[in-house]
Amino acid sequence: MALISPSRRVRRTPFSDGVEAAGVKAYTVYNRMLLPTVFASVQEDYRHLKSAVQVWDVACERQVELRGPDAARLMQMLTPRDLRGMLPGRCFYIPIVDETGGMLNDPVAVKLAEDRWWISIADSDLMLWVKGIANGYRLDVLIDEPDVSPLAVQGPQAEVLMARVFGDAVRDVKFFRFGMFSFQGRSLVVARSGYSKQGGYEIYVEGSDIGMPLWNALMEAGRDLDVRAGCPNLIERIESGLLSYGNDMTDDNTPHECGLGKFCDTQTAIGCIGRDALLRVAKEGPVQQVRAIRIEGDAVPGCDRPWPLIAQGKAVGQITSAAWSPDFNMNVAIGMVRMTHWDPETVVQVQTPAGMLDATVRENFWI
Amino acid sequence: MALISPSRRVRRTPFSDGVEAAGVKAYTVYNRMLLPTVFASVQEDYRHLKSAVQVWDVACERQVELRGPDAARLMQMLTPRDLRGMLPGRCFYIPIVDETGGMLNDPVAVKLAEDRWWISIADSDLMLWVKGIANGYRLDVLIDEPDVSPLAVQGPQAEVLMARVFGDAVRDVKFFRFGMFSFQGRSLVVARSGYSKQGGYEIYVEGSDIGMPLWNALMEAGRDLDVRAGCPNLIERIESGLLSYGNDMTDDNTPHECGLGKFCDTQTAIGCIGRDALLRVAKEGPVQQVRAIRIEGDAVPGCDRPWPLIAQGKAVGQITSAAWSPDFNMNVAIGMVRMTHWDPETVVQVQTPAGMLDATVRENFWI
Repeated sequence: MALISPSRRVRRTPFSDGVEAAGVKAYTVYNRMLLPTVFASVQEDYRHLKSAVQVWDVACERQVELRGPDAARLMQMLTPRDLRGMLPGRCFYIPIVDETGGMLNDPVAVKLAEDRWWISIADSDLMLWVKGIANGYRLDVLIDEPDVSPLAVQGPQAEVLMARVFGDAVRDVKFFRFGMFSFQGRSLVVARSGYSKQGGYEIYVEGSDIGMPLWNALMEAGRDLDVRAGCPNLIERIESGLLSYGNDMTDDNTPHECGLGKFCDTQTAIGCIGRDALLRVAKEGPVQQVRAIRIEGDAVPGCDRPWPLIAQGKAVGQITSAAWSPDFNMNVAIGMVRMTHWDPETVVQVQTPAGMLDATVRENFWI
Repeated sequence: MALISPSRRVRRTPFSDGVEAAGVKAYTVYNRMLLPTVFASVQEDYRHLKSAVQVWDVACERQVELRGPDAARLMQMLTPRDLRGMLPGRCFYIPIVDETGGMLNDPVAVKLAEDRWWISIADSDLMLWVKGIANGYRLDVLIDEPDVSPLAVQGPQAEVLMARVFGDAVRDVKFFRFGMFSFQGRSLVVARSGYSKQGGYEIYVEGSDIGMPLWNALMEAGRDLDVRAGCPNLIERIESGLLSYGNDMTDDNTPHECGLGKFCDTQTAIGCIGRDALLRVAKEGPVQQVRAIRIEGDAVPGCDRPWPLIAQGKAVGQITSAAWSPDFNMNVAIGMVRMTHWDPETVVQVQTPAGMLDATVRENFWI
């Protein structure tokens, strides 16, 4: 593996000093910002995430803030998920699509008030799309990227740790809800959410200046819980079926292909820009879909480009994420599979750097 | 320095195999794609670039293609540069601004025909802005990212090498013009341009499949010229005053602040979305501007965040790129300086990781 070069363009975060002090070994770049990927090793980080508690610098989940009388209307233009019933204090996972129904992002929408929303984005400059739409439709709404940097606390001991820092009331926050909690006199959005299935929270740290104080407070309070700096873990997220925008889906894909059809209320999401295209998709159904896939053999290398899936000499899909799972003692993977081969237990071949391997389509992820 | 983690999301290029075989040591990520930053060392790469010829994988300069009857109208909406006199076969460096005049990108526009353009982008998902505007204004235009990956040939021997591969006619291509040249039966756009001041070309490689054949052909043909794999060089680009979007300017800045006022024909660029704001800026003039800056002392470390410029205890700007220049025997830098301190020979202080250092504003870059 090569090194990553420092530059202002690849932005540091309010937590970078903590990440470096914790001995980060590797990064990726996400929304033109540093995202740690390895501390001890991917496998050791995985083991620890599943047994203790970690603090994650996910500041790269930048916020797009929408404020103003047309904020709610604009939100509904962006997504086929029906947002009418959404109350302030709720988080919704929403596919965001262009006029052809192609996925532009798969963020979490945070409704702060009727006229104020955050979109906590995956890896694309979604703000440019939102600003372009708002400008073209002459909507009465302000759009910008506020100084808000999510810090995730994930793992089985997350609730214990969070209660020590934010008080016991944090235990009452339900999944995909948020409350306002105080830290050093600052009121912060704290949601029960995160990019793992080990349980935990995301703190929307508003104001870079309290980034390191909060990081340090969590590390101090969790010493006996063996709290460590961590990061989204490749193995755990594949086991858990957490898709990654840019890896497992791109703007080539519809939400239905990504298994996100349940978030498409295409009949009622009036105003959604991609509605016409998605009504067509909903009628016909997708021709390919995301699947959990087991790859036979020894540990495969990192999947840095799509690996073709082959059956009877024909391309029937591709693997887009893969890793060796110590807990399940197999290679776990995520792929896009054509309908001819997407049934559970279908065996296909996958062309990896380690050669052609057998792969089996699964009914479910490893949860 | 930490490692960079492989994933599909951080895209490989058609030339990645060549880059790896040449022993790339470090990357950055640019438009969610790998961009090499170091081969031998930044200083050795610099010496070689200035004396021989290099082949650069700049596939990360992705293209946004606009096709259709409204393509030219949309192009003019994006930029304050007057495009009316631009003929097919020309390349224009254009600032792209939002409705407040903030820079969204500083690409090169390539006019293929009246109704077909490429925008060869710097590091932001400009396609999302262009698509949003086109959708909102209901323009009759198709927008996508074609399979086009620029390969740059840069250095004093670039013309000699290019003539060997594309024929002597390539010598007649003037600066910021392009011609169509054939390689393995494929007709490619070849422009005299590139992100260095050492002279050279950019080949818009259409079709990933001919990426490595072209890379190899250039390496073969240039063996006696000591051709090597290279990349945009930090030292050379600072000496040459080549700004980097995301480093030396962001969407906070107007073109005038970036010294790009000469590309703003704000009176005549009718239809430009940021025109109102830029008319105001043109009237008042910017309050800060990009400057070449010399930093005293030994070689400074990499500038991975803005370094404050201080005078009389007050913030008067920031350094955004810096490197030790062997040829000029000093630290060369690019910064944004407030008008109170932007005159040549003004001495200020810069807060670096190596401590507080003297810095001198210069009249010109090192060219």
